Amino acid sequence: MSLLVTGSLGIDTVETPFGKRDDVVGGSAVYFAYAASFFTPVRLVGAVGEDAPKSFFDVFKGRDIDTTGLEIRKGSKTFRWHGSYVKDLNEAVSVQTDLNILAEQGPRIPPNFLDSKYVFLANSHPALQQQLLSSLKNPKLVVADTMNLWINVERPELLNLLKKIHGLVLNDGEARLLTEKKNLIEAGREVMKLGPKFVIIKKGEHGSLLCIGDEVFVLPAFPADKVVDPTGAGDSFAGGMMGYLATQGTFSPPTIKRALAFGTVVASFTIADFSLAGLQATDRDAIDQRFAAFKSAMSF
Amino acid sequence: MSLLVTGSLGIDTVETPFGKRDDVVGGSAVYFAYAASFFTPVRLVGAVGEDAPKSFFDVFKGRDIDTTGLEIRKGSKTFRWHGSYVKDLNEAVSVQTDLNILAEQGPRIPPNFLDSKYVFLANSHPALQQQLLSSLKNPKLVVADTMNLWINVERPELLNLLKKIHGLVLNDGEARLLTEKKNLIEAGREVMKLGPKFVIIKKGEHGSLLCIGDEVFVLPAFPADKVVDPTGAGDSFAGGMMGYLATQGTFSPPTIKRALAFGTVVASFTIADFSLAGLQATDRDAIDQRFAAFKSAMSF
Repeated sequence: MSLLVTGSLGIDTVETPFGKRDDVVGGSAVYFAYAASFFTPVRLVGAVGEDAPKSFFDVFKGRDIDTTGLEIRKGSKTFRWHGSYVKDLNEAVSVQTDLNILAEQGPRIPPNFLDSKYVFLANSHPALQQQLLSSLKNPKLVVADTMNLWINVERPELLNLLKKIHGLVLNDGEARLLTEKKNLIEAGREVMKLGPKFVIIKKGEHGSLLCIGDEVFVLPAFPADKVVDPTGAGDSFAGGMMGYLATQGTFSPPTIKRALAFGTVVASFTIADFSLAGLQATDRDAIDQRFAAFKSAMSF
Repeated sequence: MSLLVTGSLGIDTVETPFGKRDDVVGGSAVYFAYAASFFTPVRLVGAVGEDAPKSFFDVFKGRDIDTTGLEIRKGSKTFRWHGSYVKDLNEAVSVQTDLNILAEQGPRIPPNFLDSKYVFLANSHPALQQQLLSSLKNPKLVVADTMNLWINVERPELLNLLKKIHGLVLNDGEARLLTEKKNLIEAGREVMKLGPKFVIIKKGEHGSLLCIGDEVFVLPAFPADKVVDPTGAGDSFAGGMMGYLATQGTFSPPTIKRALAFGTVVASFTIADFSLAGLQATDRDAIDQRFAAFKSAMSF
């Protein structure tokens, strides 16, 4: 089933202990779409400026990603982010952020995407996330991401959004900020009181946590002995997870658990190289093999 | 098979967000011995001062713990630690540490303990750890713990110890300090180059990591929604792990993985209450039940 993603497309400059890459393709929707496309057809909705280099779009070539919803807006500039992981591979320092087009009005969902059943609202203003969601006809599974900024400055809008989605993905710091609970299981349960039926808390190198109903599921990160560039790990995780879910048609706890494991495995390819290169170097067979290895490495 | 543990016995004062306990029983060997005794008979070697209250020894009553090696040294004072987790439940702040008897000569292993096949050298001066080890006849499995202090000030002695043991247990910060590798898998592999056949890296609330040969095994902590007092979690983890291993007679990777999972589960009881109370409130049946729940919560 088709999976719709809305989110950012950006031009990144990234520094890590393994080098620097200037003006590479990035953005939450890009990582998400690429990761999800290993599992299911993806519909991409987002906007870039006139300055987006032609090579930007090459990344979608040969992938099952419908870019009908990719707007190239005249007179606008593409979102740019310059981040550094030189001090700590587990935490990006933002050297510079130019919101550019992300500060303008949001993209539109094209008519042929309005019947999408699976939807991921990557991190953006919660009012925009709601606006995009409201235009969809009858989505079956809606999952959103968010960030500190919106928790701090747009909490009422975010709380409105939470009433309308099935699942929320956020990182540990954001979960604590949103709920004022330090214990992540408590935090996850608090979030569910705000609306979502399940909550996935990303803990970076420490893996992830799923709260659904009374159940708690913990998953370590795939053990990686070399992390080159963690950019996009969280979005790739979400993409792998949602991509797998879109092929299942059920959202039972065991299915979501397997989806988390697929997300974990896909993210492990992302961080092995700069920008999209880690994902571009893999395929579904390699993902399935690593999934089996992960399952085996975790069983006792 | 009998499991020998040498380590500290202490009088703790502990503060956490859930309250304060003055002069309660503590010490690495105490937590370890109690935790291991759910699985196998334990031989305890350690020393306290004359000031140790009679109630100190009550904790071993009814447990399969042989205290022949527990010395009450005249003219000496028991090790005391005052720690606070009020600011951060995941990291103790030492308010006061009085080494007392730990700064004197070490305890002796009684003659009837010298044939012990399973040995855990809880954290103490690496020269003392070696001295204790050298008196044993023909141990089958020797695992040691260590700490920042010895890595910093007694590195040559610690390196000598590492050549003589089968397994090392240490926390993430210590593994990084010892090897100067930030990536924990790299760190684990570096430690193995120094002697041990396997390395277990404890990551507190984030679980643990096992490196053995080319294999890497990651295990999250048992998902706990209420942590009352984390004191002794690492020693209980080691106790559960070694206790289980002592019943197995093989140290294959799958056996050590299961042992880590048992250690994880036992530690989850420790942190649910102050001092030994969490362990005292449980039994082997409850441990086995939680083990099954943990296995199920982690499978996908």
